[in-house]
Amino acid sequence: MNDYLDQIAWNSDGLVPAIAQDAETGLILMVAWMNAEALELTVAENRAVYWSRSRGKLWRKGEESGNVQRLKELRLDCDNDVIMMQVEQVGGIACHTGRTSCFYSVLQDGEWRAVDGVVKDPKEIYR
Amino acid sequence: MNDYLDQIAWNSDGLVPAIAQDAETGLILMVAWMNAEALELTVAENRAVYWSRSRGKLWRKGEESGNVQRLKELRLDCDNDVIMMQVEQVGGIACHTGRTSCFYSVLQDGEWRAVDGVVKDPKEIYR
Repeated sequence: MNDYLDQIAWNSDGLVPAIAQDAETGLILMVAWMNAEALELTVAENRAVYWSRSRGKLWRKGEESGNVQRLKELRLDCDNDVIMMQVEQVGGIACHTGRTSCFYSVLQDGEWRAVDGVVKDPKEIYR
Repeated sequence: MNDYLDQIAWNSDGLVPAIAQDAETGLILMVAWMNAEALELTVAENRAVYWSRSRGKLWRKGEESGNVQRLKELRLDCDNDVIMMQVEQVGGIACHTGRTSCFYSVLQDGEWRAVDGVVKDPKEIYR
């Protein structure tokens, strides 16, 4: 294993959470998980590659939607267990709901409210 | 349990990761974990309260250092398993190493390199 992979404090499932932040706007787009192979591919291919826990396989972000995340910078936190990426979000949509960011719900008066609009109907994204 | 807590997809340990982002600069400061009590206290006290997995107890960010994170906004992602907070970072330091952000290491030429400097010696922060 590469040294930089070996230094990561993988959890008991061999995963770390990875944050994608829009390099231009600073918006936090999403958080997903990576295993060592996903991180290695992210670096090798210069695009975000995650491990889909629900599907149990590698997930090249944008492989279906075209909304690829091009890697600009890769960071690690002080206890080596969270990855943070600066990315260029192709198509301007990170969320499967058709929104720019997955963090579109805000807590207001004790309720989660979707405050950010849908940019593109998911039916048009995933055909 | 409050409805907004009940809607969260807590992991098998009853935790969710929570991102703290500087509301003014957009810098991602840190990621730590919350249980239901920590999140409820975060909302009630309007400041970041985490669950320390290493110490096994609630951790009011800044309780020792004074570097409190005042809550400006609280968001949830589309699959309800990651919290994102906009905060005012009192003292300008989130990391126990004395740096603004915990994400101070960048992958360069296959190595993690600490590229952001220490703002304040940790010995001066934790007396």
